[in-house]
Amino acid sequence: MSVTGPAGFRAAGVAAGIKDAGAKDLALVVNDGPRQTAAGVFTTNKVKAAPVLWSQQVLQERKLRAVVLNSGCANACTGPGGFQDTHATAEKVAEVLGVGAIEVAVCSTGLIGERLPMDALLPGVDAAAASLEATEQHGLDAATAVLTTDSRAKQAHRGHDEGWSIGGFAKGAGMLAPNMATMLSVLTTDAEISGEDLDEALRAATKVTFDRLDVDGGTSTNDTVLVLASGASGVRVDPAEFTRLLTETCQDLVRQLQDDSEGATKTIDITVRGAVSEADAVAIGRIVAEDNLVKTAMFGSDPNWGRIAMALGRAPAEIDVDEVAIATNGVTLYADGATASDRGEADLSGRHIEIVIDLQLGEHAATILSTDLSHGYVEENSAYSS
Amino acid sequence: MSVTGPAGFRAAGVAAGIKDAGAKDLALVVNDGPRQTAAGVFTTNKVKAAPVLWSQQVLQERKLRAVVLNSGCANACTGPGGFQDTHATAEKVAEVLGVGAIEVAVCSTGLIGERLPMDALLPGVDAAAASLEATEQHGLDAATAVLTTDSRAKQAHRGHDEGWSIGGFAKGAGMLAPNMATMLSVLTTDAEISGEDLDEALRAATKVTFDRLDVDGGTSTNDTVLVLASGASGVRVDPAEFTRLLTETCQDLVRQLQDDSEGATKTIDITVRGAVSEADAVAIGRIVAEDNLVKTAMFGSDPNWGRIAMALGRAPAEIDVDEVAIATNGVTLYADGATASDRGEADLSGRHIEIVIDLQLGEHAATILSTDLSHGYVEENSAYSS
Repeated sequence: MSVTGPAGFRAAGVAAGIKDAGAKDLALVVNDGPRQTAAGVFTTNKVKAAPVLWSQQVLQERKLRAVVLNSGCANACTGPGGFQDTHATAEKVAEVLGVGAIEVAVCSTGLIGERLPMDALLPGVDAAAASLEATEQHGLDAATAVLTTDSRAKQAHRGHDEGWSIGGFAKGAGMLAPNMATMLSVLTTDAEISGEDLDEALRAATKVTFDRLDVDGGTSTNDTVLVLASGASGVRVDPAEFTRLLTETCQDLVRQLQDDSEGATKTIDITVRGAVSEADAVAIGRIVAEDNLVKTAMFGSDPNWGRIAMALGRAPAEIDVDEVAIATNGVTLYADGATASDRGEADLSGRHIEIVIDLQLGEHAATILSTDLSHGYVEENSAYSS
Repeated sequence: MSVTGPAGFRAAGVAAGIKDAGAKDLALVVNDGPRQTAAGVFTTNKVKAAPVLWSQQVLQERKLRAVVLNSGCANACTGPGGFQDTHATAEKVAEVLGVGAIEVAVCSTGLIGERLPMDALLPGVDAAAASLEATEQHGLDAATAVLTTDSRAKQAHRGHDEGWSIGGFAKGAGMLAPNMATMLSVLTTDAEISGEDLDEALRAATKVTFDRLDVDGGTSTNDTVLVLASGASGVRVDPAEFTRLLTETCQDLVRQLQDDSEGATKTIDITVRGAVSEADAVAIGRIVAEDNLVKTAMFGSDPNWGRIAMALGRAPAEIDVDEVAIATNGVTLYADGATASDRGEADLSGRHIEIVIDLQLGEHAATILSTDLSHGYVEENSAYSS
């Protein structure tokens, strides 16, 4: 179950003909209320796609009636014409739903630098609007219509004892190093919550979930996470409790993104602890996550911890080389400035690998989720646009 | 010709048994003077190998009689025992040459986290000292003995009209993103120059050569570039003229490093111009050079400029998206905020690719040299230590 899990939402996913071969490529998620509270976080890349610029603008009101999403084209680096296409998409959705365009967010994902085929997209909006329903299947259709190189839909749903829930879907398989956030995700809830609290909860949740996934360092031009609250449960939530459940839902989606990222044969969790600040822990985790020599060693199931030491030594963070301890899958390989165990003692042959770096300097920690660098990644990404 | 080109130098390269299979693995370069002026630049990685710590210390005197280098073991992350091994190596060289250990620099390259096999290394020093000569072949032997995954020796030599010259060798094939400098290089000259001028010239030359090579972002624990001046030509050089020729020699070596880097099927020059500062130009060039999505697209000969736009947008530098122009192999693909030419017009099928990013904001420029990300890189690096 995903966006249609909470009460007050309908969804649809159709094949509009933006992608070749009749695959679903247009999704619509509608909030029927009674409330239409919303919040969003967006890519930090200076190069922002037209739909990001549009959605950032409409989100200033913290109110959304609908989100329209397409795959097959990112509508990024497309100039004023591309922005007009996004605007026209929102206008079209507004027209068929009888709402204002300012209440419609737009998300796009796919190849950068191509214009949207509007002659396919606009009729697709009609088709999507005509098929809107609140069923689980319709939620899955929407989650499917946003996929690009993903191999499967990513959905999550969490219920709360007090009678409300949070649902969501996400897509993302490459160009995946959110900050914030290298993919598209739409979350829904029937909780009653103020726009300010919703915004704060979303920022808190994404900071420790989507922002800690780093597959290839590639913060994209289109990253967007939106949360829509219908208030349909009639339950006014405690913001802290809402943040907790939202974080859990986001983390569920992030685990699915990690597992399905391009070419991944390993999922790698890099935990940095004993840091003087959380920022230091994140910086070190990220630099290890993005290091191609670490990533290829992990692909080869090779506990070559020297590469981890090399990578962390170039992080903009406080470290004391003689204090650092490095463990892989529970075996400490480096400690007190020298080899602690023979690397052969760490078995990295399974799909999941845990790297733990203990700086032994402070009290802060963070875990970055990553993957290996495989032939599959190279294969998939050397032939994407052509 | 390399380090034995300039007058006053002898070299040797022998198989000491540090590597398996009888490959050359120990090099010695000796400065017979009359002067022994020297300078060095070292890795900026916080994790520094024992030989780097040692050589930084001895270089404070700006005087070197000899450099001893080994491949097959980096002697990094080896604790106090590893430092003692480096010290003992310098002592051994000092003893056989009849000089002070404080006049001997040590360089190591190879796997991180392993101790040096001193029972092979120390007899190797005797063998190397016994075979020291000033011939071209002996220079090549030394250049060969430092190689790891390199497929060939890298040597350079430049003569000056006034009767002096500069020679050098370098090694480096992976973990290659100097700052300063992801590899080992020894340069020699028979020019007469003060220690201060030599140091300044080396810093100026490496800043625009070795520091602008970025294959995989992996600044290593052992990076060292040394320059030794014998004064044997009897010519007192103009420092500016010396810096010019030293830069040319370094650039020659860097081009060889770029061309021979692990798994490279393409050499890629990324020129960033119109930047508000040189630092901005370098930062953008580097982030594009390290981006796996750009690198895999280049491997596929795919002018997917959207990935270049994505990468530069995440650089810590000043950009105006609507002003940026991106060209590959002479064809402008993106300008004025939108597609400028069909990507099919840029032919990237050859081995060399030129990416030019014009920010159109200022007067500064820099070129970063890089390579693609290929199956060969993944293959080579997934099985290095095991």
